[in-house]
Amino acid sequence: MKLNHVIESQQFTRESLEELFDVARGMEKLSTQVKSLANKIMISLFYEPSTRTRLSFEAAMMRLGGNVASTENAQNFSSAAKGETLEDTIRVLSGYGDVIVLRHFETGAAHRASEVSEIPIINAGDGTGQHPSQSLLDIYTIKKEIGRIDGLKIAMVGDLSNGRTVRSLAYLLSKYDNVKMYFVSPPNVTMGSDIKEHLQKHGVSFEESPDLKDVAGKVDVIYQTRIQRERFTSIEEYEKAHGVYIIDNEIMDVLPEKSIVMHPLPRVDEIKYEVDKDPRAAYFRQAHNGLYIRMALLSILLENR
Amino acid sequence: MKLNHVIESQQFTRESLEELFDVARGMEKLSTQVKSLANKIMISLFYEPSTRTRLSFEAAMMRLGGNVASTENAQNFSSAAKGETLEDTIRVLSGYGDVIVLRHFETGAAHRASEVSEIPIINAGDGTGQHPSQSLLDIYTIKKEIGRIDGLKIAMVGDLSNGRTVRSLAYLLSKYDNVKMYFVSPPNVTMGSDIKEHLQKHGVSFEESPDLKDVAGKVDVIYQTRIQRERFTSIEEYEKAHGVYIIDNEIMDVLPEKSIVMHPLPRVDEIKYEVDKDPRAAYFRQAHNGLYIRMALLSILLENR
Amino acid sequence: MKLNHVIESQQFTRESLEELFDVARGMEKLSTQVKSLANKIMISLFYEPSTRTRLSFEAAMMRLGGNVASTENAQNFSSAAKGETLEDTIRVLSGYGDVIVLRHFETGAAHRASEVSEIPIINAGDGTGQHPSQSLLDIYTIKKEIGRIDGLKIAMVGDLSNGRTVRSLAYLLSKYDNVKMYFVSPPNVTMGSDIKEHLQKHGVSFEESPDLKDVAGKVDVIYQTRIQRERFTSIEEYEKAHGVYIIDNEIMDVLPEKSIVMHPLPRVDEIKYEVDKDPRAAYFRQAHNGLYIRMALLSILLENR
Repeated sequence: MKLNHVIESQQFTRESLEELFDVARGMEKLSTQVKSLANKIMISLFYEPSTRTRLSFEAAMMRLGGNVASTENAQNFSSAAKGETLEDTIRVLSGYGDVIVLRHFETGAAHRASEVSEIPIINAGDGTGQHPSQSLLDIYTIKKEIGRIDGLKIAMVGDLSNGRTVRSLAYLLSKYDNVKMYFVSPPNVTMGSDIKEHLQKHGVSFEESPDLKDVAGKVDVIYQTRIQRERFTSIEEYEKAHGVYIIDNEIMDVLPEKSIVMHPLPRVDEIKYEVDKDPRAAYFRQAHNGLYIRMALLSILLENR
Repeated sequence: MKLNHVIESQQFTRESLEELFDVARGMEKLSTQVKSLANKIMISLFYEPSTRTRLSFEAAMMRLGGNVASTENAQNFSSAAKGETLEDTIRVLSGYGDVIVLRHFETGAAHRASEVSEIPIINAGDGTGQHPSQSLLDIYTIKKEIGRIDGLKIAMVGDLSNGRTVRSLAYLLSKYDNVKMYFVSPPNVTMGSDIKEHLQKHGVSFEESPDLKDVAGKVDVIYQTRIQRERFTSIEEYEKAHGVYIIDNEIMDVLPEKSIVMHPLPRVDEIKYEVDKDPRAAYFRQAHNGLYIRMALLSILLENR
Repeated sequence: MKLNHVIESQQFTRESLEELFDVARGMEKLSTQVKSLANKIMISLFYEPSTRTRLSFEAAMMRLGGNVASTENAQNFSSAAKGETLEDTIRVLSGYGDVIVLRHFETGAAHRASEVSEIPIINAGDGTGQHPSQSLLDIYTIKKEIGRIDGLKIAMVGDLSNGRTVRSLAYLLSKYDNVKMYFVSPPNVTMGSDIKEHLQKHGVSFEESPDLKDVAGKVDVIYQTRIQRERFTSIEEYEKAHGVYIIDNEIMDVLPEKSIVMHPLPRVDEIKYEVDKDPRAAYFRQAHNGLYIRMALLSILLENR
């Protein structure tokens, strides 16, 4: 398997996903003595804060024996404040490290970076654009927890309009057979028509439903998302979307025994804490899988360079 | 010796303190070739800045061959800003690293973290609560400098009401025999009655005195503290407490030859710079001991996991 | 070669520069297996942000197998906010690490730090003072690109009054024979008389010229600098200096074939992007050389300690 950069979910085929998951499975059992990236340097270049994502990549690099040079908030603390372009910054940093993990507030930033970089770029989120390692760990979690993806029934719940993760996941799932999606969202934040058209074109069946409890009774996966205040232009719009669909024990009562609840985290109150003890609450295992997916990506990008 | 978490000074008995100090003494002589924590990752999770404490823990981890993933200011830069609970953050991060060093602005935060964490938590200060590695390095310094703790005469000077370090140190010293404490403080920031009751209950003798010079003539240790502006509600109260008790050459003239001056640092003007050259000025050696105590804590927490 | 601290360009003789460049050349070919600083800790202590410089030093340390403990913005995040002196901070940190890379907003800070530190201090910029690794990498780049420094013809362009890099470079170049300098700057930011006196005293010939195109036709090196808005007291003064001298393809057309364009970066618009593809555009190679110079400095400072 050959990767030059990790920019968007779309770059992965079903076959390359399977290969990636094989590598990730290997990472779960990796001896801590292995130091395959012992002489490599990862640069964390975060123009907006994301402690969880950053620390996850950094831990992944360290587990492979690699080194990490990091900036938590490049926007305020760097040449960007003096008017330097992202391209110039990347050109310079690609002379110092072996891979750059980039978080940026502008859609398309990672792609622009990859065009000038001499070393691999991993997109760790660019504006409302992509965050591919998140959707890769999502689908890896489904495979690991449910045992298959073909034939999957999944409910996507919450802010489907602004939610980057559910949009990317819907896209990736469309590569598999007989997937059925249920979109459960407040009326002001429904799934975008671009995704729905993509699904139709690829023969993926989906249904929009306002009734979470009804849907919960028939799915393998509930993928809950946070209603992100920062994505709404008015408080009124936010209040209309917030708190409508909550996962609590009542929902868990109707969820089938082998099904799971996922969430990209952080959560606020859209999954009640009472649910955490339920073995079907998979969201912390899902976050943990991020470590293995990121180890796999770093390993594939760097081992044969 | 077995440790699961390091949350508060009270968790240490006199026996476990002695064991810890043995390990710390070993750390002082440790060959730099030893890499006992070579495959471990420490996560520095600081919700409020404390460069000195953070770098001390990070250097300790690195001296043992370990790796460090770090966040300088988790409060502004992380999921906390989106409303995530500390417990959720800890659950996720405990999937990435091997130990978490936590600094938080809320009293009790470290204890809460330890209840959900799958990996050891070290409390690096929680609000007005505990900062156990500080009091451990304090008592380690006394043992190393004075040669014993039983029979110690110590003056605690400055803001004894808000000073976390002197409160914890008083508590720890109460485990030893024949310790005599002198509390020298402005009248608006005297030692709390809870500590005084604890000392009385354990038969530790103490005395409150307004006369630093008189006390300085009869103690083994002067433990000076900073009057912290941020702990006072009004400037008037701060001004009343500030600048009353200063260690200068005049005080050093009456301090016995084998005695020492300690300070948790940073200092502002409560120890004059003229004192620095005096061999009894132990505060920089004290700070340095923090490295060995933190190496010892990390080593005990992680080596047999 | 013996170095205790790296504080200012002036501390290097022509002979020690040559020795340093020999070590740096070795670093360019260094096997990634070499871990000569494997047990050492570098502390990045940055009181003002400089992501590029910091990451460059950190990558250099890691390439030599060393460890890095880092603070991005010590000013807001540390004991400094509580009133601690730089000297006290350095005394404490020099007990934790093996070398301190210091960036500070006050001229002379690195020198003050070196007077109290028990470990080497590298000045990574102190106010309007020095930033020696920058001028060392500049002159290393000239040697590598042009093949010699004696007999060099160099144009220094832009803000020569406030530009720390050109001032230091002029100083260092005065150690070589038959160097000719052309100072091309807006009238309100000409080269300081202290540097001009120094050059006259050392028999270095220089010329002030308002005509960049004329000068470009006869030099080996154009050293362009950014007009730094933050160095001007009024917007009027800034506007007078800004945008007067731009390197574009028209300038490149008259620049001799073996000559190069340098820039300390970041650039804003003083070199047009169209120039980047020209092989004579040396500024990204120059930035990359910073890695080797910093590896060489760290190696010389630490290997025999």
